[in-house]
Amino acid sequence: MARAVRDLQAMPPKYPAIAYAVTVRVEYANTPGMLGLLATVVGEVGGDIGALDIVRSSRRAMVRDVTVSARDVAHGQEIVARVREIPGVKVITVSDPTFLRHLRGKIEVLSRSPMKTRGDLLKIDNPGAYRVSAAIYDRPASVWNLTTKGNTVAVVTDGSAVLGLGNIGPSAAIPVMEGKAVLFKELAGVDAWPICLDTQELGEIVRAVKAIAPSFGAINLEDISAPRCFAVEEQLKAELSIPVIHDDQHCTAITVLAGLYNALTIVHKNLADVKVVVCGVGAAGAATGKLLFAAGVRNIIGYDVEGVLHRSQKHDTHPGKKWFANEGNPENIQGSLLNAMCGADVFVGLSGPSVLTVKHLRVMGPDSIVFAMANPDPEIFPEEATPYVRIMATGRSDYPNQVNNVLAFPGIFRGLLDARAREINDEMKLAAAQAIADTVSSDELNEEYIMPSVFNRRVSPAVAQAVKRAARQTGVDRKIGLSAKELAATK
Amino acid sequence: MARAVRDLQAMPPKYPAIAYAVTVRVEYANTPGMLGLLATVVGEVGGDIGALDIVRSSRRAMVRDVTVSARDVAHGQEIVARVREIPGVKVITVSDPTFLRHLRGKIEVLSRSPMKTRGDLLKIDNPGAYRVSAAIYDRPASVWNLTTKGNTVAVVTDGSAVLGLGNIGPSAAIPVMEGKAVLFKELAGVDAWPICLDTQELGEIVRAVKAIAPSFGAINLEDISAPRCFAVEEQLKAELSIPVIHDDQHCTAITVLAGLYNALTIVHKNLADVKVVVCGVGAAGAATGKLLFAAGVRNIIGYDVEGVLHRSQKHDTHPGKKWFANEGNPENIQGSLLNAMCGADVFVGLSGPSVLTVKHLRVMGPDSIVFAMANPDPEIFPEEATPYVRIMATGRSDYPNQVNNVLAFPGIFRGLLDARAREINDEMKLAAAQAIADTVSSDELNEEYIMPSVFNRRVSPAVAQAVKRAARQTGVDRKIGLSAKELAATK
Repeated sequence: MARAVRDLQAMPPKYPAIAYAVTVRVEYANTPGMLGLLATVVGEVGGDIGALDIVRSSRRAMVRDVTVSARDVAHGQEIVARVREIPGVKVITVSDPTFLRHLRGKIEVLSRSPMKTRGDLLKIDNPGAYRVSAAIYDRPASVWNLTTKGNTVAVVTDGSAVLGLGNIGPSAAIPVMEGKAVLFKELAGVDAWPICLDTQELGEIVRAVKAIAPSFGAINLEDISAPRCFAVEEQLKAELSIPVIHDDQHCTAITVLAGLYNALTIVHKNLADVKVVVCGVGAAGAATGKLLFAAGVRNIIGYDVEGVLHRSQKHDTHPGKKWFANEGNPENIQGSLLNAMCGADVFVGLSGPSVLTVKHLRVMGPDSIVFAMANPDPEIFPEEATPYVRIMATGRSDYPNQVNNVLAFPGIFRGLLDARAREINDEMKLAAAQAIADTVSSDELNEEYIMPSVFNRRVSPAVAQAVKRAARQTGVDRKIGLSAKELAATK
Repeated sequence: MARAVRDLQAMPPKYPAIAYAVTVRVEYANTPGMLGLLATVVGEVGGDIGALDIVRSSRRAMVRDVTVSARDVAHGQEIVARVREIPGVKVITVSDPTFLRHLRGKIEVLSRSPMKTRGDLLKIDNPGAYRVSAAIYDRPASVWNLTTKGNTVAVVTDGSAVLGLGNIGPSAAIPVMEGKAVLFKELAGVDAWPICLDTQELGEIVRAVKAIAPSFGAINLEDISAPRCFAVEEQLKAELSIPVIHDDQHCTAITVLAGLYNALTIVHKNLADVKVVVCGVGAAGAATGKLLFAAGVRNIIGYDVEGVLHRSQKHDTHPGKKWFANEGNPENIQGSLLNAMCGADVFVGLSGPSVLTVKHLRVMGPDSIVFAMANPDPEIFPEEATPYVRIMATGRSDYPNQVNNVLAFPGIFRGLLDARAREINDEMKLAAAQAIADTVSSDELNEEYIMPSVFNRRVSPAVAQAVKRAARQTGVDRKIGLSAKELAATK
């Protein structure tokens, strides 16, 4: 686990991507040519100069903050080292804008209502709040109208499976959960609060989440390792009357299905006819297999470290693997990934770097589709794969077709909250996937544009509407009108 | 418990207090004199007209929103009923601004950082957040600098003892907890989030709070009933390395002590010499007794439904009562409240309405001080008491000397967070009380002004500074410098 952390810090990505920026405060003699020299050196080593702010300027000396985009941390350090070597340039400080954004955290709690006068205080606190509490006690459904519950999601983790970092525990996981909270608010107006649990024991996790559930409208489980995550979700779904979703499983599955809908449209194939290989049967792999099945795919081969999952094996401890063996492998094929890939139409990679080679792509069927979503380094890089596949998607923002579950979770939870849903079911997930896919119009759709941009502001409302509609159609919504008093307040 | 809810809704306060406002939308013929008639009727029935907004106006008709302050809900309804009777005036809607303030809840989660560009996304989410998570994994103390933990309090309740309402459960308690969160932010810049627990079992409460602790810098227990609240607090204090405070106990105690410091200055008495009677040994009464003792009071008589608490009784199940019997009653007096009050200098009431009569006041010592803090109706109303006492305080905002723990908790938690404190001790509580008291200058101090206003913006910073200083002096603070990377980010 600790190893994973070191790896991430040390490992340079195979291909360039701008993912890091560093601000270097430099002082140099205020003579012509110095800035040009600086810019040339930065450019030579592959850095991209952004802002060039003047901090102080005198006839003799100039102090500037130079912000440079780099591929990664190591590249940033390399650039700074080269700048330090320029004669006459003194590096005063090196700052990291990412850390600056994190000082004191990324989220805060604000009052939706001014608190300036005694009248405000009397409404917000005693006796106003107490009258509202009494009203909720009298009519429990009012909690959805009169508190933040109706707009609030708990982002719950035990820090056991943080993307790329592994089991770093609850405290170190906080920045990732805060990041989710930011995305929830910015993209869907959902109030999300991080709940980072100081336990990795199944029963304790379930007990803690059950205990804190009353003030939340939905539970977003996050970065909990497989196979424990399946039991946590299953038990909480059984015990709570608000939706519980393990994001890593279901929002990934929904986003993959969205991409697949669009990809299959391009190659004129049907879900019912394609052969799909899912490589990596962790939390996301298992959920993706099941959702593709629910969408109509019948030939879904699961592949994991032990090879192709088939019915002659025992998978007692891992419901995901068992499912692939029993439901997803109609011909009960066995053996290597190469075996599985023979004639496959779609590869869905949720495993690790470099699992796939050109050899595997060559045996796929015509118009093959590859989702290589291992992060940060995919199962195969697009540069290698594209000669052999028709459509290629990754989890990265620096290649076309980024499969990013930020396309799914904000809108899904918005829809769940708007429906006051009791749970999330397959119909709602399928509707969400279709809504994401439909955001790319048929005019726009092409091999390099099957996924909408994460900045496309139409995605989240479309997903929310689809989820809310599906909740109504399947009867898992709550119809909670305003009471007379609540209604009068809105007039 | 349910009875308490009904009582609050039905019971008119004994003396007027403006605690409720109602907005009535009325339509009437646009002729001279109509508004005057309306205002006269409202005034006759004791209503106080605030805003008079025009909604629509034509030559024939006028529609206005008339906001009227009233004593309470029943009085508001009485006013509306009288307005309905005015010939030519039609009541269109009646709205309740308190409920309006509560629609969709009173708090929200905001991003402290813009999320507009891909560069923002890369810093806030993957890979930026993951680098910060890795940094916290490497240096755990960084969690205080790089996440919201350092500014965040969990407001935890099981809804078992909500002021004036009793055991209404976690969902109905949410508006009160949201109200606290608003006050935390508005008065001290603290981010507080309501955690309303779906259990009232001691062990479960402790387990749940321990589980969620990693992302919070302090725990504010709220409205948990006695004697369970003592064990919850004690066990959590033993298990967690962040401060745990049951607000009802300690912030009440601190605020009472602050008032007592100032009251004793006026009457020229010393803590060590006075006799104090604490009436009502629930959560607040026990903590107040102990804090007065820590401040130097030696003669503290506890009085409860069973009479004066003394050493010949058994109080095995209630540590607070036991404490009063063993530590607070030097002469081991017994019997009635009248017994206890003989020669007392200070009465501290944390019990119920009308517990005190003039008879009790008459037997007190000279320059007597009465804190009658039962809410909403005090142990004795100031109108009755003032002829017999020198200094009178209540828990109400409509009389002088309001003992409101909003004077204490925002600044206390601000100080705890600023100190990165591991716990709160008596030295910190005493310092907080002194800081509140000192906000009233010696020029200002008089019998009707021993407590600063809840709107005095100097209180919370003064309390925070005092608590932080006392934390340092007693060695319960954490000294967490910025790492090189965090420091560079601030440059």
